[in-house]
Amino acid sequence: MIDFKEELKKRAALVEESLEILLPGTNAYPPLIHQAMRYSVMGGGKRLRPVLVMAGAEAVGGKADDALTAACAFELIHTYSLVHDDLPAMDNDDYRRGKLTSHKVYGEAAAVLTGDALLTMAFQLLAESKGAPENVLRVIREAAVGAGTFGLIGGQVVDTLSEGVELDENTLEYIHRHKTGALYKISVRAGAILAGARDDQLAALTGYAENLGLAFQIKDDLLDIEGDEQKIGKPVGSDTKNNKATYPALFGLHKSRAKARQAAQQALAALRPFGAEADFLRSMVNFVIERDF
Amino acid sequence: MIDFKEELKKRAALVEESLEILLPGTNAYPPLIHQAMRYSVMGGGKRLRPVLVMAGAEAVGGKADDALTAACAFELIHTYSLVHDDLPAMDNDDYRRGKLTSHKVYGEAAAVLTGDALLTMAFQLLAESKGAPENVLRVIREAAVGAGTFGLIGGQVVDTLSEGVELDENTLEYIHRHKTGALYKISVRAGAILAGARDDQLAALTGYAENLGLAFQIKDDLLDIEGDEQKIGKPVGSDTKNNKATYPALFGLHKSRAKARQAAQQALAALRPFGAEADFLRSMVNFVIERDF
Repeated sequence: MIDFKEELKKRAALVEESLEILLPGTNAYPPLIHQAMRYSVMGGGKRLRPVLVMAGAEAVGGKADDALTAACAFELIHTYSLVHDDLPAMDNDDYRRGKLTSHKVYGEAAAVLTGDALLTMAFQLLAESKGAPENVLRVIREAAVGAGTFGLIGGQVVDTLSEGVELDENTLEYIHRHKTGALYKISVRAGAILAGARDDQLAALTGYAENLGLAFQIKDDLLDIEGDEQKIGKPVGSDTKNNKATYPALFGLHKSRAKARQAAQQALAALRPFGAEADFLRSMVNFVIERDF
Repeated sequence: MIDFKEELKKRAALVEESLEILLPGTNAYPPLIHQAMRYSVMGGGKRLRPVLVMAGAEAVGGKADDALTAACAFELIHTYSLVHDDLPAMDNDDYRRGKLTSHKVYGEAAAVLTGDALLTMAFQLLAESKGAPENVLRVIREAAVGAGTFGLIGGQVVDTLSEGVELDENTLEYIHRHKTGALYKISVRAGAILAGARDDQLAALTGYAENLGLAFQIKDDLLDIEGDEQKIGKPVGSDTKNNKATYPALFGLHKSRAKARQAAQQALAALRPFGAEADFLRSMVNFVIERDF
């Protein structure tokens, strides 16, 4: 097996290098928006989505490097959703990854426009991705659906509407499947599609990503209770304080841990048709449920 | 020549029919966002951008109908920009086209997400447009650039930053060229590109659209002073009251009218290489500077 943490760091660095090159310079007119875009995009994060795009390409025999532009696009979509999610009208968060949020630094109007700009640029990058034009178009279509009201935005809407309301299992699952799951799924698929994946390979990778996303989310909920504040970068217990629906709140710690393990096993099982070229994706499963940040 | 007003009405109706079909139903989960999307998109407007897409296709020998999906995409981009522009953090407008704005009806969080959803769906529709895959990809790239920080969003940023500041001619022109001009330009180009336009045809159409956009904007400024409140759908003199930079404020009425006429003439001149297939675009020039709404 590969040294996963080392490899993840290397790939995240590659993504950051590309973003550095692709984002307009901070002197480009009008400078304010380009500064604000860089502030949020270059502000850290695990870069899991772009890494998944690259790993999806590799799993079906493609090159990670060829998927780099598309990978960056998915990081922009993720970042846009955070910038808008943090707005006063939404979650009203002052900090993100230990830094002031976009609207706290640049003002609310700029933060709205910065999110818009990142989303718009994501589609530019997707359209500039390497791959057969038919495949690139398919990725753009899937990204738009996955980021839209039947994906990411749908999850945001239900999450926002559900604030302070007691959630049932179905709604909690809907939110997670859409707010985080949809982009995970499309990230892996995008890399694979650009590399010319067959339908059966795409189906397997979809099953993988859905379960990976679920495991990730349950682990996130568990870390909010059991985690180390220094490592997770936010106060422990903030979900409980904000009356947020979580797996531990609904199922208790024990059953939540079991659910995370089960999802992890199903993610690994979905990769059975693949050989060593999917080892990175396999390692990612363990990373996701064993991480302490 | 064609009966332009009749033809414009017919085409706007065609666009509205398509939007009606393409937008998710208001029962689709989560209903709130789909209701809010329809509320803003189906709320009237001249539908000039989608009509320009169709006319751009025709000018180079394509069929207007083939460009309909792409045309709808440009109306969604336009609508998203209005929904976000009206937000309290931006222009803080309560009414648009005589109806309450999105955030007044659905709340601020929903309005942010509705704009996001419309922008996202626009790229889905573009990716589903009829045309050679290479041409569709080019349209997506151009749309993203035209709607991004070097186009529409750039214009918004400078407009927002300039509030209450006395503007010079260059800044005023920058705002107009980007905030309205960029999308006009890309709309005409998009239709033409999808229909397989040659580069010299695209260059001519670009010159046309830039001048049409300028004429449209100056006329808008003039209507704010000379127009009929009932017809333009907002109080006369609101630009002056809001201390907005306008052509009449910078140049006076007389010179502004001359500038609008000049832009109109240049728009018509740009169409010289085209025959009767560009008659709709020609009529549009007269419509834009002679309209009273």
